[in-house]
This record gives sequence, structure tokens and C-alpha cells, in this order.
Amino acid sequence: MLRTEINELLTQTGPGTPMGELFRRYWQPVLLAEELPENDCPPVRAKILSERLIAFRDSEGRYGLMDEFCAHRGVSLWFARNEQGGLRCPYHGWKYDVTGQAIEVPSEPETSNFCANVKLKSYPMVKLGDVLWAYLGDPEKQPPLPEWEFVTVPEGHAFTSKRLQECNWLQALEGGIDSSHVSFLHSGNLDSDPLFKGSKGNQYNKGDLKPFFEVVDYEGGLLIGARRNAEENHYYWRVTPWVLPNFTMVPPRGDHPVHGHFWVPIDDEHCWAYSFDYHPTRHLTDVEVAAMRAGMGVHSENDAAYRPVANKDNDYLMDREAQRRGETFSGIRGIALQDSSIQESMGPIVDRTKERLVATDAGIIKARQKLRKSALALQEGVEPVGNRPQDQKVRSVAIVLPADQAFVEGIGEAMIAKPGVPQTTV
Amino acid sequence: MLRTEINELLTQTGPGTPMGELFRRYWQPVLLAEELPENDCPPVRAKILSERLIAFRDSEGRYGLMDEFCAHRGVSLWFARNEQGGLRCPYHGWKYDVTGQAIEVPSEPETSNFCANVKLKSYPMVKLGDVLWAYLGDPEKQPPLPEWEFVTVPEGHAFTSKRLQECNWLQALEGGIDSSHVSFLHSGNLDSDPLFKGSKGNQYNKGDLKPFFEVVDYEGGLLIGARRNAEENHYYWRVTPWVLPNFTMVPPRGDHPVHGHFWVPIDDEHCWAYSFDYHPTRHLTDVEVAAMRAGMGVHSENDAAYRPVANKDNDYLMDREAQRRGETFSGIRGIALQDSSIQESMGPIVDRTKERLVATDAGIIKARQKLRKSALALQEGVEPVGNRPQDQKVRSVAIVLPADQAFVEGIGEAMIAKPGVPQTTV
Amino acid sequence: MLRTEINELLTQTGPGTPMGELFRRYWQPVLLAEELPENDCPPVRAKILSERLIAFRDSEGRYGLMDEFCAHRGVSLWFARNEQGGLRCPYHGWKYDVTGQAIEVPSEPETSNFCANVKLKSYPMVKLGDVLWAYLGDPEKQPPLPEWEFVTVPEGHAFTSKRLQECNWLQALEGGIDSSHVSFLHSGNLDSDPLFKGSKGNQYNKGDLKPFFEVVDYEGGLLIGARRNAEENHYYWRVTPWVLPNFTMVPPRGDHPVHGHFWVPIDDEHCWAYSFDYHPTRHLTDVEVAAMRAGMGVHSENDAAYRPVANKDNDYLMDREAQRRGETFSGIRGIALQDSSIQESMGPIVDRTKERLVATDAGIIKARQKLRKSALALQEGVEPVGNRPQDQKVRSVAIVLPADQAFVEGIGEAMIAKPGVPQTTV
Repeated sequence: MLRTEINELLTQTGPGTPMGELFRRYWQPVLLAEELPENDCPPVRAKILSERLIAFRDSEGRYGLMDEFCAHRGVSLWFARNEQGGLRCPYHGWKYDVTGQAIEVPSEPETSNFCANVKLKSYPMVKLGDVLWAYLGDPEKQPPLPEWEFVTVPEGHAFTSKRLQECNWLQALEGGIDSSHVSFLHSGNLDSDPLFKGSKGNQYNKGDLKPFFEVVDYEGGLLIGARRNAEENHYYWRVTPWVLPNFTMVPPRGDHPVHGHFWVPIDDEHCWAYSFDYHPTRHLTDVEVAAMRAGMGVHSENDAAYRPVANKDNDYLMDREAQRRGETFSGIRGIALQDSSIQESMGPIVDRTKERLVATDAGIIKARQKLRKSALALQEGVEPVGNRPQDQKVRSVAIVLPADQAFVEGIGEAMIAKPGVPQTTV
Repeated sequence: MLRTEINELLTQTGPGTPMGELFRRYWQPVLLAEELPENDCPPVRAKILSERLIAFRDSEGRYGLMDEFCAHRGVSLWFARNEQGGLRCPYHGWKYDVTGQAIEVPSEPETSNFCANVKLKSYPMVKLGDVLWAYLGDPEKQPPLPEWEFVTVPEGHAFTSKRLQECNWLQALEGGIDSSHVSFLHSGNLDSDPLFKGSKGNQYNKGDLKPFFEVVDYEGGLLIGARRNAEENHYYWRVTPWVLPNFTMVPPRGDHPVHGHFWVPIDDEHCWAYSFDYHPTRHLTDVEVAAMRAGMGVHSENDAAYRPVANKDNDYLMDREAQRRGETFSGIRGIALQDSSIQESMGPIVDRTKERLVATDAGIIKARQKLRKSALALQEGVEPVGNRPQDQKVRSVAIVLPADQAFVEGIGEAMIAKPGVPQTTV
Repeated sequence: MLRTEINELLTQTGPGTPMGELFRRYWQPVLLAEELPENDCPPVRAKILSERLIAFRDSEGRYGLMDEFCAHRGVSLWFARNEQGGLRCPYHGWKYDVTGQAIEVPSEPETSNFCANVKLKSYPMVKLGDVLWAYLGDPEKQPPLPEWEFVTVPEGHAFTSKRLQECNWLQALEGGIDSSHVSFLHSGNLDSDPLFKGSKGNQYNKGDLKPFFEVVDYEGGLLIGARRNAEENHYYWRVTPWVLPNFTMVPPRGDHPVHGHFWVPIDDEHCWAYSFDYHPTRHLTDVEVAAMRAGMGVHSENDAAYRPVANKDNDYLMDREAQRRGETFSGIRGIALQDSSIQESMGPIVDRTKERLVATDAGIIKARQKLRKSALALQEGVEPVGNRPQDQKVRSVAIVLPADQAFVEGIGEAMIAKPGVPQTTV
């Protein structure tokens, strides 16, 4: 249970808010690379952290991310022409380069210095993996580029999708670090989803509905261990890393690709779920990629604006018969939409003054504490954690350990992402 | 004309408001029985008096009505599984019985007493007739079960439907107790609607557009008499009973089934019209029921969510040619939608500071006074009227009386519902 | 750049606001005549200056414009029957004539004087040209009827359309008096639109992207001159008249019909664009009228409610390929929608504290000053300008003048509308 003011602190990420300032210290996914597929392609609206921005790719392939509206009279640059090294407003032809700098104001004399003084607010944006990343914070505090394993594995090892989620980012994150709901919400999918099925871990998952949680501090965030009964004198541990503020990975299953998420605030009532799959040591197979594209695993079937086809307007195409028969536990098709439906059903921003947490919510409780502490510390000038390469080179782990071994010991270096070394999985 | 603060007092029915507290002292229709057709059927969202509730029917046929959201993390229990004696949240498997009591929290040790302390707000809900009734008030003040005649006649004698009305409940009630508009708004239907036509009363209705109103106090509310000219030295009286807070009946026509309504606040800008038809002494005929199902009489043709097919988004399928030709006076098809269209056109909550009432509004004026007085008296501890069986065993009456006879005398016991005795009708 | 309070002053036109009171001193277009095509036709909702009104045409062809809601209980008179000299509310039959006077309250005794005291707020409405004009201000200050040339030319010389614009009226007006954007936003249409193409002026327009603006006071408003290079020692001048508060005309092209606009506030976030074409000395040709009806020139293709088929919900059917190829500069089809898309993209009410004006915005700056001054002066009792016939008998001009001649001298009386005298055009 949270007090109202803490719920607001954690959920509000607009400019000037404590959590908004914290988010602005990290590189964040802002678009899929496929949204700007070629030089001089159409610009794309990109709202993030309650800021309305326009993203584009210029004639030389440089990426730009800047204020959506022309400095002159406020026209949306979504209507702009992307041509010859810049975005040209269709109203009076003002033209901007990828830094937001005005480079042409046709009505002004060519000798004029007018342009030099017109610059739109802009942010650096880079492509890493299948994602375009932006940094919206103080340029002097800009961290090194992201080194998450899913963007550094060789070409063909990773797949990333995104989908709109119509609730606050924190509701989504809390679902992501909650390893206990898999035994319920997703239980019908463990044996049928081609990207989940066939692992021995699933048997442990379904065999023990009372996982014990152990959450340990980790330099970039938390390691959340969920312990379930395995063979005699052994435990099955699923270890979920959470890196501040909004990165998490699902523990692996067999030789399936590993997956994880970023939940990026659009505004306080919407977020993007960026969901990735990768394999450290091999290409994704055609069958795997086809399943991901079809909305299986952690992905979803979306419309052209990345809104899921099954959404709150159609009650997520709830199939009560499938629910009754137990094909899916919740009646919603697909793991991603099962999560979305549940999280969105709480309302745009859930009222956490009314919740009633239990032991299996330990990860959620600690993550909230750490987020709050980091946001408040930042106001005192304490730099947040999670930006160093070693904070990001992290993996989820699924492992069977002797009953008397602490999971942090047992996993050894399994949680450290190492090129060419396969994930530790059951 | 009302002052703003009185308009607000009468129209606001959320928790803690004076009218809201008054409503909470009565059993109210909350669903049609057909919405929970069998044991373990899907749960149904039921918002009433601005409270978001979930209704379900368990494996043994017991009805439950409780807070829509899981006590744990706030998931909507609309997504729940209805199985083996309770509603199970799909997120982490918390399970509730029909009283809102948690009966299983799978993550907790079986020996734990945790469940016992988790209980959702819940209300009693019972099936009477075709309707599920709920009582949302203080359990210690719970009145006896409803005894309205339409729910106590033998099986096959009654039919009930519901439809969404997109305005405050009071606008709808005021239409219901306003016996003068029938000569205008519904005049085109008196001769054509199979559930209205062919009665001699219709001739009186259409022959005298200046009814005289006499409103008399009655223990459960009001008896509103509308007097029109009949044969020499005689008057045709239509007597509409109103029982607090939101029950009313239309005076009968010939041997047609008698009908009436409840207008139940969903929130301050929406209400459900529950509309019933019954005959005290005979089965409804197949032809009658077919007409009701087809949206004739006081019923309407609705979509699966009980919203009328003709609604404000499509201007109620207004047919200007039918209006011009006089087939329907208003151009809207069907009596129910004629009422809805007019009442909704006033806006979600009509501004009663601007109205201009006349003598034919006497019933409306007295009903408002009585509602206001009852709501304020309740705050002083005075119990409201309308809950005793004798308050509810009431009928509407249509009768021709000698010119010198007061209607309350003339109707004798005709307004008292007596099993096996036919309605008094012209 | 404007301060917030000035932006609010200029953009708010509801009852009692300074700009609202200014607007109420002028005859304004409120409907197209085609919306009330015959006696006793259906009434039409007409919201203007944030007032919800109902317009109708009675059995004798008189026009009425009055409060949308019945004085009795607030029913929308859109549902009324238009019959035998008045609008009859369908609820209880109250009937109003075109002045808003109640002429029948059927429930009242025929000898009653009740009617005489019931009168809806109403405004004079007259047909001039293809437009119905209303005056919403103090009756004692009612100006003479409009004498704009497009409503006084002979039958067949003019064509008027309207379209919904989903932004504040001032954004639209500012586009109308901004003669510099034509070289960009509409450049692709100058050679292809049948109502624009083929004029020599277009070559000057496209050949000089740095027009010089000269704005001079004129008794009814402003004359905004945009000067572009022409042949040696000559300038091409386009002169746009603006008459307070919301009339403007586009400078002509060759022998094409001349066009212009009124932007009439519906409420603070919507306006109607009334767009006209006329030729002072000849009939419009069938080809021209067909092009106008098809949405070319300053007109648009609309749905039955006059909302453009290409609108913000479908991103104005943006064609990125046409944009890339330069067929249209902005990718939006049609001059009218090019303007709408740009202006609406700024948001419902653009934040003028953030704009950055330049020399070519001279007309906009002066118009704002004049509007503000007039609104404030009116509060001091100073009557506004623009209502005299000579203020309205005005034309736009396109002319080539020697380089050393001031445009106000050069145009002589070309800006004065004179029956039978053709426009001055290049």
C-alpha cells in the first residue's frame, strides 16, 4: 500500500517531476528502427515522457528527434517534407536539421543571420539493435550508449517489437518483475506457446504455486529470485534482473530465446512496451521469428499504429469458452495481451492506496523503494545507477540449486552477459 | 424551477450524497436475471449509484455482487474465472465467494489465516421475477424483499427488459410520471402500437389535450391523477402511482398488459430504464411477448450491451418524413425511444434553474418535494417510506368517473394489487 | 509572440467575453441557405459564438434563429415539428414562432395569457446570397445588412460552401491573411487547380519566395500588400483586404473567380470556414461550379455535416508519395484542406506565447492589434468599424506596378467593389 503522494511520485514522469527527471538520465527506446526505415522517409510522431516530439532520418541517414512544432507558428512537423538534409515545414518552408537547428528560413534575406538563432529543442537519438534510443536529459550528464545484450548480439540473434499499453508505466513494470503470476495468468500458455513450451522449468512452475521470493540488491537495480520446489533437496530458481528504471528480463526456458521488456512512459496514462527476444549464441530460427511476428511469446498482433488488435475497446477478444476449458487461464489469447488486459483493467493509474500486498510482491515493494529513493536522491545531486556497461550486461537465469545454497551464490556469474556464452537455463 | 443546489441534491446519487443515501435504503434492480443465466456463467460488470461492482452466480446458483476490483492489486474481476464456488482473479488466483470473502490465496501457506482478513465490499443480491435486486445500504436497515406485483405474478405473466438511458435518472423519472405528454409525444403510437392500440382510453387521450392534474399523497409516494373529458358529465381518469424513489406505472389500456418502470442511476449522467409488462390474471400471449422483444410498447430494440440501436449518436434514426406525415409525432420510432430521445436531448443533467413549469407538471413538482424532504429527513434519522409490502402492492388505474366524484374515492381499492383480480382499465 | 492573457482575449468569443462582444456587433454567417431549403423543412442545430441555437424556416418562408431548448423543460427543439407557422416541441406541444415567441401551450386554457410571457432568446436571421446571416448583439446597435460583393452580385455569379475547421477561429483567419505561405503550402496546386492555374501571377508567386509586406490601415480593417519581384523595375503586388472581425479575400488570378472567407467561431475550439467564389462581371461557368462542388479551389469535399472527408482523424489522407514527388507540397490534396491541416495541427488553440514571428507576419501582427484594440474600445463604448457599406464593398487586387510606386497609390480604386466592373488582376 502506498500513500497517494508516493503513488503520484512514482507514476508521473512529465518534465520537472522527480520520476520524470530520473527517467531523463537514461537512454530510452523511443521508436523501433523499422519506423524510420530509410533516408528521407516520412517523419514520425514520438511522444515520450509527456513530451510531443518528431523523429526523422535525414538524407545522410542521421537521426533527429526534436520538438514536434515549428518555431515559427506552431505547425506540427509531422506534416513536414523530409528533404535534402532536413525537415521543411510545409507552411512557410522553414527547414531544420537533425539537431533542431533552423538551416533555412526562405522569407529572410540570404545574408541574414536569422536562422542561426532559431533552434528547436532536440535530443540525441541513435540506432542500436532494432531500436532507436534517445536521451532527454541534461547533455552534460549524458551516459554512455546502452550495452544491453539484446542490442549487442550479432545480427539475426535478436527480435524486438513494441505495443501500446493503455496504462501507467509502473503497472506494466510491476507485472514484469512479478514472477509469481506466471503460474496462473500464463499457465495455459506454458505448454502451447511455441516460444515457451517444452522446458522442464514449466513443470516446476506449474507444480508449485507458492513460490518463495528472495530479492537482493544489485548494482544496477535488483535481482529478484523466485524459488519453487524441484527434485528432492533442490529448488528451481527463476532470477529476474531489474535495472533502473524500466528494464527487466524474463528467466529463460530451455533453449528458447530469452526475452525481456522496457516500459517507456508516453504520458502518465500510456506507455510503450518494447519487448525483445534474443539468443546469446545462435541465430533465431525462421520458425521462431515467424512466431514472434505472429504475436506469440512476449509479442502481440498489432495494428499499424502498434496498438494491439485485441484491446480494451473489444475486451481483448475475451473467449469465455477457452477460459472455461482452461486452454487459457484468463480467456485472453497470448501472453502479452494477458498481461496488458490485467494491467489496463486496474485503470489508467491504479490507486495503490487500496492494494494489499503479500510476500510474493517482495520484488515490487523493493523496486518501488529503490525508484523513490533514486528519484529523491537525484534531487540532492546523487547520480542514479544503471547506466554503466556492467549494470546493463545482465541476464535472467533459470537454475536448479541444492536446497541449502543461496541463489546469489548458486548462479555465480550466470547473470553476467558474456558474448558467446549461452544463457543458464532449465 | 429549482435552485442549483436543489438540482444537485436531487440528481447526485454517489456514495455519501443525500439522494445516494436515500437510494441505498431500497432494493434496486441491478441486472436482468438473463444476464446471469446459469451457474458459473461469466461475471458481469454492474455499475450502480456510481459504484463499480461485479456480479456473478456461483456453482450452486448463489448470486454475488461486490467490488469490481481484486483486493490484492486492483485487477478487474470481470476477467476472473467463475469456478467451483467462487470468482478467481486471473492474475494470482485469489478467489472470492459470493459474499466477497476471500476463500483462497494460493501463494499463502495453507495454514495461514490470511484469507480470513480479506473481504471485498459486497451487497446482497436476489432474483425476483426477471430481475436481480440489490441492496446497497446499511445491513441493519435492510428492508423486506420487494413485493411489486410484476415480480410476484405467476410465471409467464410478466416480461421485463432494460435499456441504457444517457441522462440523469431524475429526467427519466419525470418523464415517467408526466401523464400529459402522451397526447403529444406518443400520440402517433396510440393507434398503431400492438401493446397500446384499441383501447377506448386512447380516444379520450387524444380528444382532450388539456388534462387537469390532481396529485394526492399516498403512503409510499404519490397518486398522480390526470383528468380528461369523457362522455357527458364524466371524466376519464388516468392514475399513475409513484413509489419512492424511482418506481412508477403507466395507467392501463383495455386488456393490454400493464407496464411500468424503474430508473436506476448508473452514475449521475446515465441510468438504466427497467421496463416491465405484466397481466394480473393471465399469461402474456406469444404475440405480446414477441412485440415486447421487438421493442414495441415500453420496450426497445437494443444491442448486446442493452444500448438502444437508435441512440443519440445517430439522432435516434429520426425519420423526418414519418414526422411530417404524422405517423409518429416526433419522428422517432417506438414509445421508449421517443422518451429517451426527448429526455437525453435536455443534456446529461438538465439545468432546472431554467425550466418553466405549468399546472400539468404538478406530479413532477410534488415528487421532487417528496424526494428532497425524504433525503433530508433521512439525514436526521427519519426512515424513508416505500419499503413496506403495502407500499409496493400498487397498481395504476384507468377509469371513467362521474364528474362530481374525486378520483381517490372513485378508484376505491382499484389501486391495490390483489392476486387474481384484474386491473381496472378503460 | 503574445502574452497568455492577450491570446485568451483574442481567441475567446463566448457571451460576455471582449472578443465575443465584438463579434456580436456584426452580421455573421450562421448557415448556408441550402441548409434550410424550403418552408417547413427540418430545423437545424446552429452553434455560434458558443451559443447553442436552433434555426428554422416557417410555413411562410420566414427564418428563425433561437435558443435550442424549449422554455418548458429544456427539450432540444431539433426534435421539434416545423408546422403551420412555428416550431412545436414534441414533448408537450409548446409552439414558437420565428421570433422565439411562444404562440401555443396546448395544456393552458385558450383564454390564458400564459403564452405571451414565454419567449425564447432569438436573433434576426436573413438570407443574402447563398448564406443565412445572423446578428447576435444588442438590437439597438444592429448594423445595416451586409453588402459584401459576393452576396450582391447577380444570381449565378457566386458560389459559397462551408466546412468545419477543428481549431480556434483566429488560427484560421491568420492563415487567410498570410499571403506568404502560398509560395510553399499551395505551390503544387498553382499550376494544377482548375480554379487557380494559368495566371501569370502564379509565376511571380513561385519565382520570389521572399515577399515584402506592407500593411496599411483601411477604414474597415487592413489592406495587406505582398510585394514580389516582377519584370525589371516592376513589382507584382497581391493585396488582401481584411475587414473586422473575420472577413478576408484572396487576391485574384487571371480571369478566375475571386474568392475569400469568413471564419465564424462555433466555440473556442471550432469554427466554420465559409468560403466563397464570385465573378463581378460574368456567370460562373458550369465547369467552374463543378470544380467548386468537387472540393477544388478554396472549397473541400465534405460529409453531410460539412466536415471534410479528409480530416484530422485520418491525417487528412496524407499522401507521402505525392508529397515526395512534389505534386502537392504538403502531401494533402486541395488548397482548403492544406490550410485546415496546418492550422489544426497547431492544436485547438495555438499557444502564441511560443511563436516566433517574422517580417512576413506583418499582416497578422497588425490584425491582432486592431482586434484587441477594437474589443477593448468597445468596452469603453467605442463602436467598432467594418459595418458600413463602404467598409464591405471591397476587393482583393493583384497588380504589377512600377518599382517606385506605393501600392496604395498604384491600385487607385481597384480595391473598391463596383457593380459591372471587373476585378483588377494579373
